Amino acid sequence: MTDPEENEPAFSSLAPGELGLVAPRDFVCASPFTFKSGQVLPGFTLRYETYGTLSATRDNAILICHALSGDHHCAGVHSADDRKPGWWNNLIGPGKAVDTSRFFVVCANVLGGCVGSSGPSSTDPATGRTYGISFPFVTILDMVRSQKLLLDHLGVASLHAVIGGSMGGMTALLFAIEFPLFTRRVLAMATTSRESAQAIAFNEVGRQAIMQDPDWNRGDYPKGGGPRVGLAIARMMAHITYVSDASMDRKFGRRKKNPANGETYNFDVQFEVESYLRHQGQAFINRFDANSYLYITRALDQFDLAHAYGSLEAAFAPVQAESLIVGFTSDWLFPPEQNRQIALALLRAGKPASYAELATDLGHDSFLLESDDLYALVRAFLERNSAAAVDFSI
Amino acid sequence: MTDPEENEPAFSSLAPGELGLVAPRDFVCASPFTFKSGQVLPGFTLRYETYGTLSATRDNAILICHALSGDHHCAGVHSADDRKPGWWNNLIGPGKAVDTSRFFVVCANVLGGCVGSSGPSSTDPATGRTYGISFPFVTILDMVRSQKLLLDHLGVASLHAVIGGSMGGMTALLFAIEFPLFTRRVLAMATTSRESAQAIAFNEVGRQAIMQDPDWNRGDYPKGGGPRVGLAIARMMAHITYVSDASMDRKFGRRKKNPANGETYNFDVQFEVESYLRHQGQAFINRFDANSYLYITRALDQFDLAHAYGSLEAAFAPVQAESLIVGFTSDWLFPPEQNRQIALALLRAGKPASYAELATDLGHDSFLLESDDLYALVRAFLERNSAAAVDFSI
Repeated sequence: MTDPEENEPAFSSLAPGELGLVAPRDFVCASPFTFKSGQVLPGFTLRYETYGTLSATRDNAILICHALSGDHHCAGVHSADDRKPGWWNNLIGPGKAVDTSRFFVVCANVLGGCVGSSGPSSTDPATGRTYGISFPFVTILDMVRSQKLLLDHLGVASLHAVIGGSMGGMTALLFAIEFPLFTRRVLAMATTSRESAQAIAFNEVGRQAIMQDPDWNRGDYPKGGGPRVGLAIARMMAHITYVSDASMDRKFGRRKKNPANGETYNFDVQFEVESYLRHQGQAFINRFDANSYLYITRALDQFDLAHAYGSLEAAFAPVQAESLIVGFTSDWLFPPEQNRQIALALLRAGKPASYAELATDLGHDSFLLESDDLYALVRAFLERNSAAAVDFSI
Repeated sequence: MTDPEENEPAFSSLAPGELGLVAPRDFVCASPFTFKSGQVLPGFTLRYETYGTLSATRDNAILICHALSGDHHCAGVHSADDRKPGWWNNLIGPGKAVDTSRFFVVCANVLGGCVGSSGPSSTDPATGRTYGISFPFVTILDMVRSQKLLLDHLGVASLHAVIGGSMGGMTALLFAIEFPLFTRRVLAMATTSRESAQAIAFNEVGRQAIMQDPDWNRGDYPKGGGPRVGLAIARMMAHITYVSDASMDRKFGRRKKNPANGETYNFDVQFEVESYLRHQGQAFINRFDANSYLYITRALDQFDLAHAYGSLEAAFAPVQAESLIVGFTSDWLFPPEQNRQIALALLRAGKPASYAELATDLGHDSFLLESDDLYALVRAFLERNSAAAVDFSI
């Protein structure tokens, strides 16, 4: 996903209705954690943030699940002069669609990530060096299970909702499958129950750009170093898939960077869109770890609910949550049809599921961008009376 | 474009109706050639092939224009055991849609290319070394003008038609604009009058992959060497844009390379589509020059008829040719709309233009693939009686 900070900041810091200052914390799980691969870590850390207050009945929590390049910092600011609020700050805050004056919002950097949670850039206590690709393989299931441990640690008795877009949507769906009696609502946007060949193909080219960079060195590089060129290429390419042709044309079209120069005959930046993409690549390498990029894209590619559970209907059979699936018309990475299939399979499995399709021309990243239509949908879904037959208070 | 030889060969060598053996030749132009950039070469070479016979009236020639990664070898085979016919062999041959028993077919590797024509991998006689990026910048206009010199050299008095897809479509259109009294028919497919920001963006990521590869060395590398990793990455990514999501899903879906292995937890090839893409990248670096890739993608990005002539209608004002523009429904690189705009602008300019849209799910490369619908259109367009008012025999 595109982080808003790499576009225009659309935020006035500490304004009324804003969360204001927030701070990350670390959940250190000291018990052994067995990954889906069978590999075991003696423990792990998840960096997370919470906003709002857990109710006395401990059932007003909402788990926010981030996308490939996101992290735990989804709302508020880290200092008074911080101009970059969390990545879903437009959605989350007091009085906003995800209302932190009603709900206890939790968001964690995923296992395998590089923003404080255990991942390939963490130090292996056994060697004193970064794990690199000796870190256990991570799947969406491992992300789900580790985040459940965090919620247990926080004393959350059940989730009012789990919400996510893109990879976060996969995580949210799998949460509702794996922890059905814990999850009352699931809201998944711009997501898929399994990637198409094209999405796998783009991820694979990104991985190749990283792994073919000599600085990758089979994943063994010092923290902050590594295959910066390969990672920037991967990000530039991926970024194109996060936006639509129409939105790129509106934003850049064929505008020249220095139109006064007239026709230029060299390989420097010529079009504004080139300059923008190079900036996207450079900004990314300063905040993301290349091995994490490999791990998380692999987790995305391997996610396949129908394959894992026999069929999509079988996958959803245990779900007790009400669900809302949202597709965006201009999303060509995880197109509306793939979102619609999720809702249909939930309905075929006898679950109370709704599907909404929002007309945007912003592409896959539509779920991140300002949309009153989306906010109204989210708010109404979170605040309506539940029709679910299951008593979650047990 | 995808070359058929990198997919399944769909050809039985030397069968009836096939051209059989063909051989390339070199046109050496010893006069100075001034590029659009103002740079001058003392002369240049175009490698080309011809099929069929030029008529006594010298007006039965058809110029075939290739796409980014194509070359002069568009039909026939180079030896009796050659299993890779030319890239448009399904369209061109005796009795085929482009009937070599009626027409004299000419196809040249573009200026700036790397398959025998002068380009950055040619030797600069002044230094005895390859030009690298000291080769003059190449535009589609330079390709058109140099190919006109070849046709003059061959004694062609006028073109029955100029035909191309993708970049070849741009070349064909510009040929009809620049040499209106020489060009009776133009057939452009899967093309655009100017690329969208998205298409420029993909080309730019490819160029960055090449130029950031340390082996690029600012374009200074020995022939056959150079940034192989960067070029492979560029090709892998570009290849995704040449096909459709649907065709990739049909061809590969989520099939595993070694399904017997079950879930695998490493970064080796896992999905068939990954293996296919890696093969595409590797095959390409053995036949294409990275600097040529930079030059030709830049020529594509800079092509902008409306900008060059004031408007698309103004660009087409001098055209005397009848035209047929063909778009393909699943082409998301140069989508149908961009092809339709060309035909509309020709009509608005008062030209006899037709637009046909073919429903395929093969993506941009649809113009290369077997399609009886396409063959019928091409044949009928080439063989119908001309309604043009201009007497081309002058």
